[in-house]
Amino acid sequence: MSSKRLIEKMLEKNSVLCVGLDPVVNQLPETLKQQIEAEGKTVEAAAKAILTFNKAIIDAVHDLVAVVKPQSAYYELLGVEGMKAYQETVRYAQSKGLYVIGDIKRGDIGSTSAAYAKAHLGTVDILGTQHSLFHTDAITINPYLGDDSNNEFYKVAKASDSMNFVLVKTSNPSSHQLQNKISDKKTVYEWVAETINNNDYNEANDYGYSDIGAVVGATYPEELQHLRDLMPKTVFLIPGYGAQGGTAADIIGGFDTRGLGAIVNSSRGIIFAYEKGDGSEHYTHYIREAAIRANEDLNGALAAAGKTMGGTHVN
Amino acid sequence: MSSKRLIEKMLEKNSVLCVGLDPVVNQLPETLKQQIEAEGKTVEAAAKAILTFNKAIIDAVHDLVAVVKPQSAYYELLGVEGMKAYQETVRYAQSKGLYVIGDIKRGDIGSTSAAYAKAHLGTVDILGTQHSLFHTDAITINPYLGDDSNNEFYKVAKASDSMNFVLVKTSNPSSHQLQNKISDKKTVYEWVAETINNNDYNEANDYGYSDIGAVVGATYPEELQHLRDLMPKTVFLIPGYGAQGGTAADIIGGFDTRGLGAIVNSSRGIIFAYEKGDGSEHYTHYIREAAIRANEDLNGALAAAGKTMGGTHVN
Repeated sequence: MSSKRLIEKMLEKNSVLCVGLDPVVNQLPETLKQQIEAEGKTVEAAAKAILTFNKAIIDAVHDLVAVVKPQSAYYELLGVEGMKAYQETVRYAQSKGLYVIGDIKRGDIGSTSAAYAKAHLGTVDILGTQHSLFHTDAITINPYLGDDSNNEFYKVAKASDSMNFVLVKTSNPSSHQLQNKISDKKTVYEWVAETINNNDYNEANDYGYSDIGAVVGATYPEELQHLRDLMPKTVFLIPGYGAQGGTAADIIGGFDTRGLGAIVNSSRGIIFAYEKGDGSEHYTHYIREAAIRANEDLNGALAAAGKTMGGTHVN
Repeated sequence: MSSKRLIEKMLEKNSVLCVGLDPVVNQLPETLKQQIEAEGKTVEAAAKAILTFNKAIIDAVHDLVAVVKPQSAYYELLGVEGMKAYQETVRYAQSKGLYVIGDIKRGDIGSTSAAYAKAHLGTVDILGTQHSLFHTDAITINPYLGDDSNNEFYKVAKASDSMNFVLVKTSNPSSHQLQNKISDKKTVYEWVAETINNNDYNEANDYGYSDIGAVVGATYPEELQHLRDLMPKTVFLIPGYGAQGGTAADIIGGFDTRGLGAIVNSSRGIIFAYEKGDGSEHYTHYIREAAIRANEDLNGALAAAGKTMGGTHVN
């Protein structure tokens, strides 16, 4: 099962950190911007630079973390060339042993969700031949269309040793608008959590976790703890730590007593760490340092709460 | 304003039909499948074939309809090559005077939604130079994250003469699961409708419509009528007509008394019409015939309800 692979990679690295690969052209290190400039500021040059940047990040952190998460929007922004950089980033990260979550937040009617799932997790059938293209280990999906959409993603994940993270409670300020509406004494996000927990595909692996994960923001710590109770078999992908304001203390509730059950994402706080550096070293130095600090920060908070991963054994 | 351009194209063609470009490789016409076979069943060959197919569809219907809607999932399914075919399809359709809705159903936290919006509606800035890539006239977006996500799309649309269609009530069987939850006497989809209607970007053009559209399924006719009342300035994109079971009578409620305010999508019922043909003619013959029949069916139902577009004048 995919979540088992994920957990074992995290145990091996002793890290709950996910590095978000959200490259922004105009924020790239000076050397890369100079290269884009020299090549005429073309889309091709920009896409090449973000791929170089991503590979450098992956080289700098692959021994420290288990998971990276490229955000589709920042690649679509560079059109076809950007999508090529996305695909090559996924492949490079996997070649370095990393678990890759494609942050694509897709969701549509059943037949269309099946196409998205095959595109990003499974294979496409071309007159009887199978082709695996974007091929991420997991993706994020949007639950607004309900279970006939979600189930198509779960089905493909089961067949392709991959997993999904369903948006439950997002980290952004206006997430309450729809997600916290109360219906029949439960919030909308609690209803989404319940449909995940009761889904037939929600089968636990040896560690007690399933291949249906959930996105739950670090910026709402009380809801995080509550959702942990509502979805005991669900791995949480927790965005919002770092640049968005969530602290290490805020994410504790997402973990079980063994220090398992959650991955904490940081994007801008890690990959643009050189912006706060003194410029004396190569940009990857600051990125690596930021990943080390984030690991220490998160592991420290987990240890203080008695949730150290070190002592974890299969049930 | 983008919705004004849209309405004027529809008036010019006397058509409320949108042709959904959802190409499925294994359902392509025999001649195209033979070509893919001859080229070794590669992804490149498949992507080339769907582009040929799309261009043939566009050539066959561009004088009959005002709008086409490529569904992103069917292009992502062919990876980078598929996205190239998507982009070229958009450009070809626009070169033939068609209004193009990219059915991408994106939505994320604010900064990421801004990136999606620039990718699909606006321009990307590469060190001070602007590049327009996917460049559709409109896209569909998912409201689960709330207004700090939606507003980023509205903002870019305003700056780039384009528009958004927000998922309100979708056409699929399980759409009720989350969308029909009742909170404070209103369904979730009514709450979404209210946030659209009250949004500052919801400014009416000369025809009384704004650049914030809504996706409302043909498969729920009563809700369609009700939502028309709740969102008087909103153009509806109505999926579910044809293959999904919605009839021409079902969509009447989405239109105002002038026969304006909605676009009715049909994908499989038009583009795969040759599957039900007798094979004596080129496949585009059946596609054109299906578009003519759908126009007649929809215009007939509108006329029967006293909602003919012909007599429409600017307010």
